[in-house]
Amino acid sequence: MRVLGVDPGLTRCGLGVVDGGRGREVGCVAVGVARTPPEAELPERLRDVADEVERWLDEHRPEVVAVERVFSQHNVRTVMGTAQVSGVVALAAARRGLPVAFHTPSEVKAAISGSGRADKRQVTTMITKILGLAAPPKPADAADALALAVCHLWRAPMADRMAAAQARSAELARNHRAKLKAAQQAAQRSAPRTGGFPR
Amino acid sequence: MRVLGVDPGLTRCGLGVVDGGRGREVGCVAVGVARTPPEAELPERLRDVADEVERWLDEHRPEVVAVERVFSQHNVRTVMGTAQVSGVVALAAARRGLPVAFHTPSEVKAAISGSGRADKRQVTTMITKILGLAAPPKPADAADALALAVCHLWRAPMADRMAAAQARSAELARNHRAKLKAAQQAAQRSAPRTGGFPR
Repeated sequence: MRVLGVDPGLTRCGLGVVDGGRGREVGCVAVGVARTPPEAELPERLRDVADEVERWLDEHRPEVVAVERVFSQHNVRTVMGTAQVSGVVALAAARRGLPVAFHTPSEVKAAISGSGRADKRQVTTMITKILGLAAPPKPADAADALALAVCHLWRAPMADRMAAAQARSAELARNHRAKLKAAQQAAQRSAPRTGGFPR
Repeated sequence: MRVLGVDPGLTRCGLGVVDGGRGREVGCVAVGVARTPPEAELPERLRDVADEVERWLDEHRPEVVAVERVFSQHNVRTVMGTAQVSGVVALAAARRGLPVAFHTPSEVKAAISGSGRADKRQVTTMITKILGLAAPPKPADAADALALAVCHLWRAPMADRMAAAQARSAELARNHRAKLKAAQQAAQRSAPRTGGFPR
């Protein structure tokens, strides 16, 4: 499975394409950053990032897009821009019928380094090792995009199994409730009437 | 000038088209809401809102898009969705070469009702009166979209004048600094040398 990882941002939007093989086999296909100048207008910046993401989708044909889930953190202005970029990326994927998965930064860190609290440098070191790259991807946004893609590849089978288990458990519960209701109705039909006004 | 006002939202995205005439003359062209089901996936919801906005742009051909500026408020989840919708709306406008203006809720309230603290009902009442509508637009998101468009029409001339005044003042300051520098350099050339090693 081929995944495009996106670390959304207006000034630097990290992009990384990773192929997944059997088990935990992963290989780097492409990595880079889409940049827009901070002095440009917001709509033009969003358009330029979206255009670059479309080019990556055209060129690399991923089957899934994995995007970092944005939280409202310290810097409100940055977060809004980041959320807007994640929106236009999700839109580009949806318009091509591609599924989009959102992963939180701590899910990515945990998947890559075994700890949800790993710092940026540790993530870069680990992703360089995992993908067997000759040099650490730069800037950190590019490394994060690859980490997102790998995180998705490694989490997806587990997520699918969990979704299947949840669906099965919901079905069992539904069947159980239906049987219970049928049994109650049967009991009511066969039981002698009690209560009510005396005739 | 024709303005499309957009009150961004995932569940309800308000849309209102207003024509501006001379002075404060305004007329309602169209008003409505794009809705997406909360149980749908985020990328599909963003695509559906974006598609509907594109239809409004095709049908009504506004010259400007006015969007509510999103702040990080109480509900982080809602804010993220709202920011993402505002991103895809700005993208749609940018791809058609249309300018996008962002106005804060208090700018809209102040423009429409004279007070930045007006409540939703007051804004609806005022916009109904201003546009001479037979009935108040519903839901509130639709009324807000019209208010945004009117706010833009009424603020735009002032914003243009302010931008022109700022540009002129920056030019004056630049000229002044250039003259000052030239005068200093002339003074240095004509003044007798002081300091340095004695010959």
